[in-house]
Amino acid sequence: MPERKQLFAIELAHMNETAIGYCDIKLGQIFESHEYLMELEEIKSFARGYDPQPMHLDEDAAVVGPFGRLTASGWHTLSLTMKLMAEAKPFGATELVGVGVDRIEFKRPVYPETTIAVRAEVINKRASTKPGRGFVKMKVETRDVTAGDVVVRQNWTVMVPA
Amino acid sequence: MPERKQLFAIELAHMNETAIGYCDIKLGQIFESHEYLMELEEIKSFARGYDPQPMHLDEDAAVVGPFGRLTASGWHTLSLTMKLMAEAKPFGATELVGVGVDRIEFKRPVYPETTIAVRAEVINKRASTKPGRGFVKMKVETRDVTAGDVVVRQNWTVMVPA
Repeated sequence: MPERKQLFAIELAHMNETAIGYCDIKLGQIFESHEYLMELEEIKSFARGYDPQPMHLDEDAAVVGPFGRLTASGWHTLSLTMKLMAEAKPFGATELVGVGVDRIEFKRPVYPETTIAVRAEVINKRASTKPGRGFVKMKVETRDVTAGDVVVRQNWTVMVPA
Repeated sequence: MPERKQLFAIELAHMNETAIGYCDIKLGQIFESHEYLMELEEIKSFARGYDPQPMHLDEDAAVVGPFGRLTASGWHTLSLTMKLMAEAKPFGATELVGVGVDRIEFKRPVYPETTIAVRAEVINKRASTKPGRGFVKMKVETRDVTAGDVVVRQNWTVMVPA
């Protein structure tokens, strides 16, 4: 019999191929993403397109800004959290369709060259009044892998077909 | 005496140059952004970087996806909302430092070639226990300019120096 770690790997591979429905998802289920390095150039590039403020764009201007040095846009960290979750495919071939997000807390600024990873836990399930679907709530935490602390947390509500 | 519209324009121009502090911000104050066209190529490009799911990436795959056609990532609409607010500079030279976001609701999917604009209203103010700063809560609504409806709404809490 394969050991626990192998079983988990087999289960993950299976999940990534087939479509996981609402009834298959269990309260307390946990998903972990791979890691991602937030490099300076990508941080500036995201800021140019989506959060053009001096604290995210320019090292010199950031020195006199709110954090005393250049920081990533919170929306950059959030968008990368989405990327990591989309790639982790917690529900296999079933796409992640968000209907709402609650309690986003930016715990601290994220600096260039931080490696992040995401951990999501199913904290609630609720059947829809419409047949053939349900809503799954997940606590989603993005952490600085090196420092070991959570930099942003949020609750996602996603719509999942049955 | 200049008429109301002119007075508003003068006030806006003034606000964009100087740093607006916590005490200057009024409950009920409203900020409007300029408009932005969400083109197909940018929608796909954002999805490749931050939300790589078939419904946002590929027109053919999206046909059998949850909305029956290609839609923008919700995080794309949210990131553009940040861009439009950063450019509107509601607090002048004072940068927008988010500490949290609540009650994000994706009202409906956003399709390519949608023109969006943002409207923010100050709905709460709270002094910090630390001196020299306060927290301002804003209801932020992103609407489809052509259709006239809100596509995503959220509440921002930002930290503003006094």
